[in-house]
Amino acid sequence: MQDGIARRDADLWAHVESESSRRLLLAALDAFADRGFEAATTRDISRRAGMSPAAVYVHYRSKLDLLSEIMRIGHEAVLAEARDAMDGQQSPAGRIAAFVEAFSSWHARHATLGQVTAHELRALPPERFAEILELRRTTERLLAAELEAGAERGELHVGDLTGTVRAILSLGVDSARWYRPHRGVDPEEIGRLHADLVLRMLR
Amino acid sequence: MQDGIARRDADLWAHVESESSRRLLLAALDAFADRGFEAATTRDISRRAGMSPAAVYVHYRSKLDLLSEIMRIGHEAVLAEARDAMDGQQSPAGRIAAFVEAFSSWHARHATLGQVTAHELRALPPERFAEILELRRTTERLLAAELEAGAERGELHVGDLTGTVRAILSLGVDSARWYRPHRGVDPEEIGRLHADLVLRMLR
Repeated sequence: MQDGIARRDADLWAHVESESSRRLLLAALDAFADRGFEAATTRDISRRAGMSPAAVYVHYRSKLDLLSEIMRIGHEAVLAEARDAMDGQQSPAGRIAAFVEAFSSWHARHATLGQVTAHELRALPPERFAEILELRRTTERLLAAELEAGAERGELHVGDLTGTVRAILSLGVDSARWYRPHRGVDPEEIGRLHADLVLRMLR
Repeated sequence: MQDGIARRDADLWAHVESESSRRLLLAALDAFADRGFEAATTRDISRRAGMSPAAVYVHYRSKLDLLSEIMRIGHEAVLAEARDAMDGQQSPAGRIAAFVEAFSSWHARHATLGQVTAHELRALPPERFAEILELRRTTERLLAAELEAGAERGELHVGDLTGTVRAILSLGVDSARWYRPHRGVDPEEIGRLHADLVLRMLR
């Protein structure tokens, strides 16, 4: 499991083309998390990346480009991780537990990224906003389909489908807000607890 | 119920001494929600309040004073509302349902305030931070005590107390992030759904 996590953490930014771009994305992520997107400056981002302000523009046109890229990478990563986790599960309940475990532990493990992806959506221009919204809807549908399948089979109780999907995702998204590594729980424990609570909720 | 809600909404800011202070707090809340605390300026806040920048300083020493006051009012209000709702309930399960219904619907109803209180804690200086943290801990203990009481009586199943309390609060806190009035659900529905999901989770 440790190997898997380490691999995924590296993978998150590994497909970004150059080392400088990767450094800028991570610097921008820290700046957005610390001060909020609006208050973060290109100068601050370049300083955190150990580069000159002019060097930023070689790689990204603006801090909005950096935010868009961070949002895309974050949303794609959590969706891919949830899909991976569901693969090989034999029942709707098994796939729901795998989704929740992956989704919640991802948000704790990548708490800074999870906070920025959850809260800076408002800053995106309409085209980029639509792209991210589509990734979110795909993630929601992935979970909703299993709730529906479980209910149809009579294995799960689902009253309000949309509300229940939102509630399940809230457990994960909010973990990125409160999670701190020193609090004595690890991201995997949070994922397992949430999976257990969700299955109890649906039975 | 409608009367109760209208009364509580008015009450939220009613004890603030002057009409100008109330206007400034609401203007600051909007500015912090739109741009984040760091990016919001005193000039922007005064413009939203329809006052001169100098007039702000008659009432508040800084935008940090405005944030501290907003944080205190928000945290005290949701705690008071949860306590009120629990009063008169005869069992731990009843009090938990009442707490969850009040806590989640409050966060949807006051979504802007809920977002700012959840995410701008980092901006507070240590003394103010400690004051708000104590209000949060009191709220957590209020819920935790009922989970423990229900478990002791053998009426509720509680595995990981701290993790379960956090998960229940996450449902409410995250409602402030995603809730939009036009989405066709009202805050009270969200509260009732979450109360139902939580009781299922604990049985």
